[in-house]
Amino acid sequence: MPPASAITPARREDYAEWYQQVIRAADLAESSPTRGCMVIKPWGYALWENIQRALDRLFKDTGHVNAYFPLLIPKSFLEKEAEHVEGFAKECAVVTHHRLEASPGGGLAPAGELEEPLIIRPTSETIIGAMYAKWVQSWRDLPILINQWANVMRWEMRTRLFLRTAEFLWQEGHTAHETEEEAREETSKMLEVYRRFAEEWMAMPVVPGRKTEGQRFPGAVETYCIEAMMQDRKALQAGTSHFLGQNFARSSEIRFQSREGREEYAWTTSWGVSTRLIGGIVMTHGDDDGLRLPPRLAPAHAVVLPIYRKDEEREAVWRYANETAEMLRRANAWGAPVEVRVDASFANAGEKGWQWIKKGAPLRVEVGPRDMAGNAVFAARRDRGAKEKFAMDRAEFAQRLPAMLAEIQDGMLAEARSRMAEHTRAIADPHEFEDYFTPRNPEKPEIHGGFAVSPWCGARACEDAIADRLSVTVRCIPLEGASAPRGSVCVQCGQPAEMAVPWAKSY
Amino acid sequence: MPPASAITPARREDYAEWYQQVIRAADLAESSPTRGCMVIKPWGYALWENIQRALDRLFKDTGHVNAYFPLLIPKSFLEKEAEHVEGFAKECAVVTHHRLEASPGGGLAPAGELEEPLIIRPTSETIIGAMYAKWVQSWRDLPILINQWANVMRWEMRTRLFLRTAEFLWQEGHTAHETEEEAREETSKMLEVYRRFAEEWMAMPVVPGRKTEGQRFPGAVETYCIEAMMQDRKALQAGTSHFLGQNFARSSEIRFQSREGREEYAWTTSWGVSTRLIGGIVMTHGDDDGLRLPPRLAPAHAVVLPIYRKDEEREAVWRYANETAEMLRRANAWGAPVEVRVDASFANAGEKGWQWIKKGAPLRVEVGPRDMAGNAVFAARRDRGAKEKFAMDRAEFAQRLPAMLAEIQDGMLAEARSRMAEHTRAIADPHEFEDYFTPRNPEKPEIHGGFAVSPWCGARACEDAIADRLSVTVRCIPLEGASAPRGSVCVQCGQPAEMAVPWAKSY
Repeated sequence: MPPASAITPARREDYAEWYQQVIRAADLAESSPTRGCMVIKPWGYALWENIQRALDRLFKDTGHVNAYFPLLIPKSFLEKEAEHVEGFAKECAVVTHHRLEASPGGGLAPAGELEEPLIIRPTSETIIGAMYAKWVQSWRDLPILINQWANVMRWEMRTRLFLRTAEFLWQEGHTAHETEEEAREETSKMLEVYRRFAEEWMAMPVVPGRKTEGQRFPGAVETYCIEAMMQDRKALQAGTSHFLGQNFARSSEIRFQSREGREEYAWTTSWGVSTRLIGGIVMTHGDDDGLRLPPRLAPAHAVVLPIYRKDEEREAVWRYANETAEMLRRANAWGAPVEVRVDASFANAGEKGWQWIKKGAPLRVEVGPRDMAGNAVFAARRDRGAKEKFAMDRAEFAQRLPAMLAEIQDGMLAEARSRMAEHTRAIADPHEFEDYFTPRNPEKPEIHGGFAVSPWCGARACEDAIADRLSVTVRCIPLEGASAPRGSVCVQCGQPAEMAVPWAKSY
Repeated sequence: MPPASAITPARREDYAEWYQQVIRAADLAESSPTRGCMVIKPWGYALWENIQRALDRLFKDTGHVNAYFPLLIPKSFLEKEAEHVEGFAKECAVVTHHRLEASPGGGLAPAGELEEPLIIRPTSETIIGAMYAKWVQSWRDLPILINQWANVMRWEMRTRLFLRTAEFLWQEGHTAHETEEEAREETSKMLEVYRRFAEEWMAMPVVPGRKTEGQRFPGAVETYCIEAMMQDRKALQAGTSHFLGQNFARSSEIRFQSREGREEYAWTTSWGVSTRLIGGIVMTHGDDDGLRLPPRLAPAHAVVLPIYRKDEEREAVWRYANETAEMLRRANAWGAPVEVRVDASFANAGEKGWQWIKKGAPLRVEVGPRDMAGNAVFAARRDRGAKEKFAMDRAEFAQRLPAMLAEIQDGMLAEARSRMAEHTRAIADPHEFEDYFTPRNPEKPEIHGGFAVSPWCGARACEDAIADRLSVTVRCIPLEGASAPRGSVCVQCGQPAEMAVPWAKSY
């Protein structure tokens, strides 16, 4: 009888619960006593550090620098841009007092009421805009290309680890430019950085495109995004890049003297990705045994597991394990030394193996007395079945390590790509569209849902009607290949449609 | 006539104002529209990134991992440890509402009042303790060695950039151990990490020691610290490491089953340094021309300044400048490639030079047509006078670069050390002590103040009395050499004193 998989329930039994269980089994994060806020545990945070390091390099290579702006934003700043404040007012954490004092009823109560309430940043356009207004006088002061790594807060009533939490970690780029063209270029450039990062680091294929009017960032002229498909075939918006036009420059008064000596408003952009990406990795690559990490982002590429039965074997096996780890660390992957851990836990051999399967380490390397005798290792790849192990000469293993990691990385991307292709269907017929998103046979949900690439007239009313009826939205207007076949009509209203766009349910 | 220095006022004219002006001239940070909060600008943030990178490496090398805990702490958590909440209640930013709503008077007002107010973390012992209580069941779950990089908030009425701001960035390590001995060892180990970092990276000598009772972290059994001396001879507490005993384990209920099968409370520690360190760098090394950065932490070790008068020289000089930068980048300093910038600003030669003097770049490398002709550079060291420049063969300069940087680093430490030695005086006589801290001749303040190493009986009352009268406190009980000469008596009460400790005014 084959062993049960490590995660209960399996994906097809209950995808949402499977997701929570994978996070728990991999020890990535957990809920905290502060409502809606998560604790990111060491394994999850190490993954975030790798995401940060890779993105930070990409940002710096495209000319950006980091800075840090205040956590708290005066209420009046948020109110300057009407659409913006409307978009965030319902989810603002508000600081109203600045100390605690003994209260007559016992215990401590808020005291020292502030003249103006302060909002914990849900995003920082308004406070950063106020600084840019001070820093920019002339076209010579432009462009400003700044990124910030920070925590932000959006009060959410229904939270899910990494996907939707009240507090989350992210980066927010905020740039100011002399011309519209330059700002639009920046918006596109950063969208492309996100696409590359998603595909080349996360092994997560995405559709880059433009958001429809109803789904724009509050205050933006255009919002661009990358949309990924999870294994339950729902879409995950994984990164956004906003062209803000002169909207925020006007509300923040970012003015400059142009080359022609005229006073003009700057053109601004903002762009961000968050710890939500970790949710994307879990849902793109996880299986019924737990997490699978793309090697390029894994905090440990390989884990060496010393395996021995007898106490007298202990010392020699440990020495061999550490020696093996040192050999593997001499290899390079993606321009940096391979990261290797030696499992020093008290667990037995089987438990150790399963722990690292659940944590998603790309390679497990068992070493025991028999391997020592043959100067070998007994290894397993996380992209293969849990029981599929192979013995290999130790030096050969070390030598082939970078190639194996690259192969695992490429294989994970290919697998995700083919799943996305399989569940992306061109649907022109309204009934088929309806059927695709409302399976008649609930016993076989697997033949339904995904991305329906369907004609749309472009009217917000049609998108809203479909959203209300089916909880399905236009994920984006893809940058490439969004034109509908000649003679297409909108799946909602039957009017002529020039676009065919991906519709899907989403996180 | 010698040129005026770049910073007005000079240090001895008005040290506090000089400090603000150096930060402004180096473009490290500025005040924000949010009261008490600062904006850390790119040059300042790049310095912080280097501080983070170096410390993070030291933490990981001593077995720690990073994680992330919530920004907001339920009020009841803070209240669990009586001394702790008393210490922080007066400076808590309190979140009381979770949305904004249109108010009858126009505009938006806080709405959605929380059942329990949330405090923006002033430090995270209580929320992290609550998590550790869940994670720890058995001695096998210990030690927990976690660090967090985060923003924290302590409402301050009188703020100064980097030294005292409402919001600041820091790291806070929080560890839990099986035994008292192990926790005490951890406390000492991290104090030593801070000492090493201060001296070997920041080139800032420090006195490591133990805080007196009145200056302990609220809730700690012992607080250890490193104390540095600024150029105005005031002390700066630059890092703290707390032995928390079982105090927080009791209030958070971090209990475990011991090896002997007994239920016991864990022993915990916490330790932190913050963006205050940047203030320490400014005040240790800055001069009347601005910032001087210790090379080991400088965001740019060398800045190449292309200098030309005629437009037709432009292209060739630029090529030579970029080529020079590439050559220098091939050198290594402290195990990593040398960081080199090419100044692409619109400023003229003189302005460019002064800008990088004020920003504290360790080396400036001018390249112009004459240098090109001789395959040379015209360089200047920030630790020498602004006008003291030297021509050198370019290849030779590249080759000598690492040694020059090391020499500058060592020289800065030696200079700071000798200043500290010069202004540390053993004073046993109460009148001399009084005089040391209250100069009779205000025209010559320079012969007064600093660290007075003076006998103390150990009574809090004596320390408090001196603090009230002279605004001078015991900075720490040094780990080494704190015993007073036989027969010493306390500078306050005249009773026998076994210790001689450094007293000083402080930030």
